[in-house]
Amino acid sequence: MSNLPEARALDAADPLRSWRGLFALPPGVVYLDGNSLGALPLGTASRLGEVMRREWGEGLIRSWNTADWISLPRRVGAMIAPLVGAAPHEVIACDSTSVNLFKLIAAALAMRPGRKVVLSEPGNFPTDLYMIAGLEAQGLAERRLAPRAELVAALDEDVALLLLTHVHYKTGAMHDMARLTRAAHDAGALVLWDLSHSAGAVPVDLTGCEADLAVGCGYKYLNGGPGAPAFAFVAERHHEALQQPLTGWMGHAAPFAFTDDYAPASGIDRLLTGTPPILALAALEEGVKLIAGIGMERLTTKSRALSEFLRAAIAETAPGLPCISPEDPTARGSQLSFRHPEAYAICQALIARGVIGDFRDPDILRLGLAPAYTRFEDCWNAAQALGEVLESGEWERPEYRQRAAVT
Amino acid sequence: MSNLPEARALDAADPLRSWRGLFALPPGVVYLDGNSLGALPLGTASRLGEVMRREWGEGLIRSWNTADWISLPRRVGAMIAPLVGAAPHEVIACDSTSVNLFKLIAAALAMRPGRKVVLSEPGNFPTDLYMIAGLEAQGLAERRLAPRAELVAALDEDVALLLLTHVHYKTGAMHDMARLTRAAHDAGALVLWDLSHSAGAVPVDLTGCEADLAVGCGYKYLNGGPGAPAFAFVAERHHEALQQPLTGWMGHAAPFAFTDDYAPASGIDRLLTGTPPILALAALEEGVKLIAGIGMERLTTKSRALSEFLRAAIAETAPGLPCISPEDPTARGSQLSFRHPEAYAICQALIARGVIGDFRDPDILRLGLAPAYTRFEDCWNAAQALGEVLESGEWERPEYRQRAAVT
Repeated sequence: MSNLPEARALDAADPLRSWRGLFALPPGVVYLDGNSLGALPLGTASRLGEVMRREWGEGLIRSWNTADWISLPRRVGAMIAPLVGAAPHEVIACDSTSVNLFKLIAAALAMRPGRKVVLSEPGNFPTDLYMIAGLEAQGLAERRLAPRAELVAALDEDVALLLLTHVHYKTGAMHDMARLTRAAHDAGALVLWDLSHSAGAVPVDLTGCEADLAVGCGYKYLNGGPGAPAFAFVAERHHEALQQPLTGWMGHAAPFAFTDDYAPASGIDRLLTGTPPILALAALEEGVKLIAGIGMERLTTKSRALSEFLRAAIAETAPGLPCISPEDPTARGSQLSFRHPEAYAICQALIARGVIGDFRDPDILRLGLAPAYTRFEDCWNAAQALGEVLESGEWERPEYRQRAAVT
Repeated sequence: MSNLPEARALDAADPLRSWRGLFALPPGVVYLDGNSLGALPLGTASRLGEVMRREWGEGLIRSWNTADWISLPRRVGAMIAPLVGAAPHEVIACDSTSVNLFKLIAAALAMRPGRKVVLSEPGNFPTDLYMIAGLEAQGLAERRLAPRAELVAALDEDVALLLLTHVHYKTGAMHDMARLTRAAHDAGALVLWDLSHSAGAVPVDLTGCEADLAVGCGYKYLNGGPGAPAFAFVAERHHEALQQPLTGWMGHAAPFAFTDDYAPASGIDRLLTGTPPILALAALEEGVKLIAGIGMERLTTKSRALSEFLRAAIAETAPGLPCISPEDPTARGSQLSFRHPEAYAICQALIARGVIGDFRDPDILRLGLAPAYTRFEDCWNAAQALGEVLESGEWERPEYRQRAAVT
């Protein structure tokens, strides 16, 4: 039986307790949507004020050198690297997850001439599937989807790349990265992992799994702010062979020589395309700094404890609500998802009570647990609110069924 | 004969005088590099503070709806539109100039099946040429370069697209957009204009010229901050046919339906790829707001008067220094460029004196005039400093010849 005193005792004993104070969390809100948009680190507002007023306002163009703006994509990438089991020079922060997917899918196809199939699963996050479709429309790729139980069987000699999201955005189910990477390699294919729901939330060992390529999101568990730059990983052994098609001037070996012909920079830098977005990268750096400061071991321990606590609490307050996330906490991401035909209205009713989770079409209520700042008491409050919303039927109000532009 | 009292009289009579006060310009600095990085608008720091603390910190995920984050790319695009002679629904703010170039070059190739040549000129801004090279390496494009005098002759039945930068970044020379667009159309090709050195600086009439496609930079004359999002234009008549390969979820007809198959949004929205970068777009919006508020007519008048004043002043203080920008102010961008074998060291010596212009490899000193905040007195001071630097030989100091990472 979970209860409020138990939740408070767990919070009091939580080694991450003091880190929560480094985030701006509005009073009266239980925020369980850090897997969609991470909370604002207090340091971000002052850092961006400094970047704007001192570096941009006073330093002006000189800050590319004096504030070392030019190396910000590499610096932030290196800070993300240990969170995903990569070496610092294997990760870079740039563009969006979608754009980085395009670069790396195309690069993988170029590394496997004669093979055109990119294998993924139906129901993968849309942008992953759509970016394959973009290359398919260009005649460069062929999209193949197989349900997760049939993925290994679908790996044949036509497959250039296996592209999967490590933690599923809807269910939280986690792929076995080591096993699937091995299976892809056995079939002569490369593997590209989307870590959007993993980085900063669950342990990832890209190097240990011998992963080839990865991308991930900056605005979820890394707290980089809405639409923050994403990151991309390329294993060092592929650096020299890597040819990506978005060959912009910042990925050139000598951008300031202004030559007519493209020559890729050595190493991970060749993933760069346009001028780095400094304000956005500085915000991302502040978010990553906190997560890297806590470290994946403590984040993992806390994440699993939180989700187990929340699962037990909701099993008591809303016993009829099916949880569709894996039961084993080591087999799921830092979230719990529940299925209900009126999930949208239930989610709105919860938000009206100050409990912010989110809805995923058509019938999923998703509760995210950001170990850096979510408390056990938040979980307890969320479970109570969910029980009361279901019990009272208050979600039936028409205003809770009105769909907003962004759901 | 230009002189300081004359400069001050011109500033006193300048109808844009009060706008300069809306930018944060450091005292003691003559900033002639707004064509590389526009100055910080005072409103940007407070706007971003508000976006961070209130919209992100307090509103959290809800702000996608409540603060209408989701429409920011369209809103900023619509605000840029009148500056380039476009309709509001023809422009969108997203990604970098380089990434937008890739989308639109690929889209043009798809609209001209059977033609693979993308025609440009040698010495065009590198990223424009490199993005063609990226598609060339994929086997989708064939890059052809012709000197500007031979461009029209190079337009044959193999050319799918003519890709040019309207105002040349090194010399400031301006192409005749109407004439070249007509010539491209006569040859059955489309035209893509890079407006990076034009938008907010010189008059552009995309609609009047019947231009097909355009891109432009957010961090030069639009003052969006270092690495700000760029913009892209597609003439309405091409909206329905437009197929660009970076088919991310934000360009989908129904992003929140989370379907497996891509279906493009109608209109300009299909140029979107990943999640919009809200902090960066909010900063860009503040910069664009000022420029749109002044309007292109007043900006053009001021720009031409400034550059004529600066040209005359430098002709007196540094009479031996060749100006390589066109003499006719209506045939050049809002800049003046000078050639000297020691341009790098001269530029550094000027910066040491507080006069910030920039250097472009191998021998160009570039002085940009941002009509929203550059004063005639700044031009007079720059001309004096340039004369003194050349006269004294102070540029010969070894520290001025040491190349920085970013030049």
